[in-house]
Amino acid sequence: MTLLTASIIIIGDEILSGRTQDRNSNYIANHLVQSGIELKEIRVIQDREDLIIDTVLNFSNKYTYVFTTGGIGPTHDDITSESISKAFNKNYQFHSEALNLLKNYYKEGEFNEVRKKMAKMPEGVDLIYNPLTVAPGYKIKNVFVLPGVPEIMQKMFSEVLKTLKKGYPKKIKTINTDLYESTIAKLLQEIQIKFLKCSIGSYPYFNFMTKKGGVNIVVSSWKMESIDEVVFEIQNMIKLKGGKSTIV
Amino acid sequence: MTLLTASIIIIGDEILSGRTQDRNSNYIANHLVQSGIELKEIRVIQDREDLIIDTVLNFSNKYTYVFTTGGIGPTHDDITSESISKAFNKNYQFHSEALNLLKNYYKEGEFNEVRKKMAKMPEGVDLIYNPLTVAPGYKIKNVFVLPGVPEIMQKMFSEVLKTLKKGYPKKIKTINTDLYESTIAKLLQEIQIKFLKCSIGSYPYFNFMTKKGGVNIVVSSWKMESIDEVVFEIQNMIKLKGGKSTIV
Repeated sequence: MTLLTASIIIIGDEILSGRTQDRNSNYIANHLVQSGIELKEIRVIQDREDLIIDTVLNFSNKYTYVFTTGGIGPTHDDITSESISKAFNKNYQFHSEALNLLKNYYKEGEFNEVRKKMAKMPEGVDLIYNPLTVAPGYKIKNVFVLPGVPEIMQKMFSEVLKTLKKGYPKKIKTINTDLYESTIAKLLQEIQIKFLKCSIGSYPYFNFMTKKGGVNIVVSSWKMESIDEVVFEIQNMIKLKGGKSTIV
Repeated sequence: MTLLTASIIIIGDEILSGRTQDRNSNYIANHLVQSGIELKEIRVIQDREDLIIDTVLNFSNKYTYVFTTGGIGPTHDDITSESISKAFNKNYQFHSEALNLLKNYYKEGEFNEVRKKMAKMPEGVDLIYNPLTVAPGYKIKNVFVLPGVPEIMQKMFSEVLKTLKKGYPKKIKTINTDLYESTIAKLLQEIQIKFLKCSIGSYPYFNFMTKKGGVNIVVSSWKMESIDEVVFEIQNMIKLKGGKSTIV
């Protein structure tokens, strides 16, 4: 089986200025992992043509799938489609089906020049339909161009997901314990060395209010048939160290 | 005035797998913008030595400040410090002050080999103190190495912020309107062309429940003394188009 990989490009001055908390990558990440596609990298870049071109070309060569969000609206700061046209040496022009969809959606006289911009795309792309506000995204080569508004992005991504190749879903289990990370670190490492086909991640947390913390231990594997044995050994180890553990 | 720039490296398999929503970059982004430091890029990368080395060196050369979060705990998957040592050709060794801090924090006999790992760092770094769980971060050249747990990262970042050079804070105002983005796009572009020293961003949103949307227009500038005139023109334009506007 080929390993399926993916990357996300968040085109977003508003994320970099802190005005907006990016929620799109977490949404996409969750769905990819369940579909057996390994998300390798997320980049948040400025709304700048040269950066969009470089990052899209780089990721398109490196990963099975690339998802971009943001910058496909009608305003002057929406430069994603023109930049991607340049990246792939395609004309930036009206997509006739997109133009029709938008024309039918707006009332007579409301479909002005500015709105028409939302139908301008690289030549020859496949549309990604938008069930909420009609203005479509599109697929060019292995790059899926999506809007930045989370509610709309999510609806469109769900449709995209159906068209992607699927891998074996990553097997994941999370074990929570009240022990300190440092109490279990050595034995956890031994278990990791014993099971090299899985990855054991250790994520401490700390509650500032209660001044209490703990660790979430995440066992995951793309390759193993089952990770139950690993989880069992970890829970056993926690018990031996006098801690509590629950699968969360 | 020199332009101060920054970048963030999130070292995080747990973000890429969708298990965790990154909140650290938004926190850092907000504080940087208020301090007149322009955040240029955020990268979320896998917990892999080669990627950490490449990204840290690349960003350290390109930006005034680099912030990393994650991977400085005691477990086997915490490889940030060893990787950064390699990146800068420094020995990866015990920092005596860090070792003392940790020794004093833990009870006699609790300060085991594993916990000691949290005092291993590139040679010659400056510590970043941790008021919550003691294990410190550090500064090496222009790179600030911070933990991934948001509550701890935030406390430590607040201290770091005091030590950074400050630029003129970016002037930002957000105007909300109930009009469609496409209704205002053309006039907004004209206002943008008139005021080239500021950036006018247009961020539509859509509430899936109410099926209503609107636009947040963000006027921002690093260079202008005041952006009030731009905001006034935009609010006037919205009024002419029959919409409502509020400063949010």
